[in-house]
Amino acid sequence: MAYGYFNSMRTGPGHRDEVVAILLEGVDGLRAAGCRLYAVGVAEDDPDLIRVSEIWDSKEHHDRSLQLPETKAAIARAMPLLTGEFASQEMTVVGGLGV
Amino acid sequence: MAYGYFNSMRTGPGHRDEVVAILLEGVDGLRAAGCRLYAVGVAEDDPDLIRVSEIWDSKEHHDRSLQLPETKAAIARAMPLLTGEFASQEMTVVGGLGV
Repeated sequence: MAYGYFNSMRTGPGHRDEVVAILLEGVDGLRAAGCRLYAVGVAEDDPDLIRVSEIWDSKEHHDRSLQLPETKAAIARAMPLLTGEFASQEMTVVGGLGV
Repeated sequence: MAYGYFNSMRTGPGHRDEVVAILLEGVDGLRAAGCRLYAVGVAEDDPDLIRVSEIWDSKEHHDRSLQLPETKAAIARAMPLLTGEFASQEMTVVGGLGV
């Protein structure tokens, strides 16, 4: 079943847009890895917070994508710009619009 | 800009699937209201928790949809089956795959 993953990450002050750019650079390759949605967003009330809403063909597709060279490279580039504060919620998608 | 809304609701014990059914009944009408994604999911580790990941054309589109008669009717049917424990996170979508 499709897998939903909603996560947030906090950047160091002023680094949000740099991290957003890194995240968006790699999105085209994600479709081939089984990603249906990878929406990168910002919080209007918090200038250092990035949220990402993801929908994948399965949890396994999502987990495998983390081993892709380009994903590993993007994470390595973003890490120094992040505070290490992460939060995430996952779900098994049971239906809806656009999934 | 597109608007992301990720929320969760807790049902009374054993009522999760009834609420999922109510949520899924109305999804076809949401596209016309500006909804791009309405993914209903369940948590593997919590039998009474429903999560919904939404992407709308804008926050205004989302907020207006709550005034639709069919949305109000669905909420009224679901409320008695819920505990009242809700959580949500929102974001302004800045880009990605599928948005």
